[in-house]
Amino acid sequence: MNRSEISFIPIGVIHSPFKKKADIDPKKYADAKGFDSIQGEIEIYENYAAGLKDTEGFSHLVVLFAFHLSEGFSLITKPLLDETLRGVFSTRSPHRPNPIGLTVVEVVERQGHILLVRGVDMIDGTPVLDIKPYTPRDIKTDLRIGWLTGKIKDWPCRSSGTEG
Amino acid sequence: MNRSEISFIPIGVIHSPFKKKADIDPKKYADAKGFDSIQGEIEIYENYAAGLKDTEGFSHLVVLFAFHLSEGFSLITKPLLDETLRGVFSTRSPHRPNPIGLTVVEVVERQGHILLVRGVDMIDGTPVLDIKPYTPRDIKTDLRIGWLTGKIKDWPCRSSGTEG
Repeated sequence: MNRSEISFIPIGVIHSPFKKKADIDPKKYADAKGFDSIQGEIEIYENYAAGLKDTEGFSHLVVLFAFHLSEGFSLITKPLLDETLRGVFSTRSPHRPNPIGLTVVEVVERQGHILLVRGVDMIDGTPVLDIKPYTPRDIKTDLRIGWLTGKIKDWPCRSSGTEG
Repeated sequence: MNRSEISFIPIGVIHSPFKKKADIDPKKYADAKGFDSIQGEIEIYENYAAGLKDTEGFSHLVVLFAFHLSEGFSLITKPLLDETLRGVFSTRSPHRPNPIGLTVVEVVERQGHILLVRGVDMIDGTPVLDIKPYTPRDIKTDLRIGWLTGKIKDWPCRSSGTEG
């Protein structure tokens, strides 16, 4: 069993209209499409830019990034959308043992080593760790959403009235 | 601009029926539901286990893990499902600058610090970096899937015949 540290290096940086955490209206999190219109850029550093080839063929990309402003973590935490303490792995809190964030963005256009995207909920200056194509295997339906039930607005692909 | 290394530590380990890469039938990747029946366990180490509270309320969880068997990377690579060289960020290849993997699994049951899950495509012994709830914000529809077009079978939530 290997519990030694694993090191990663930023491959790029997010340019976002949110210059600090307080710029984000937390109500947006309650809407499945709350950030859909927020545009930003993913700048990939030149030494990794060749890997962006073909990304523009996909409508959506998964972005993994570092919650670089997050210090420390709590295993039990009160989510933005709830008043009850929850296990951190049932939340998207930035204060997690490994502060890795995940957002699925929509591709507007690629301009060389820069991707113009929509759906940005990251803070300006966020270090990018990875970009992956969002594929049909990432679509799940008939969701149960635990403590989020009733706290998040309409979303696509719901089956007939079992959840929410 | 901060390009220094960021270190993460495994919070757990995957127990999978796939003991080595050759145990995985690559044809499964061509089916959006190809791994849906594959059951495994996510063991979270005791010092992080308290964070699993409430995860069992969600039908699906996002698992981030280290591609621990992957050595080195190529910015341009031939995907399993294609004969053409593609940019690595348009693929889910394990040979990426930061070898982080992402799989959405279905929760069967939580037994203390162990999650029984379905949808496993990881190799046995894979180090787990993070677990997040899969939420409605992670569902995207009207996908365009670039070079994957025509190479992957039916998936849910397709709009009327624009893609694939």
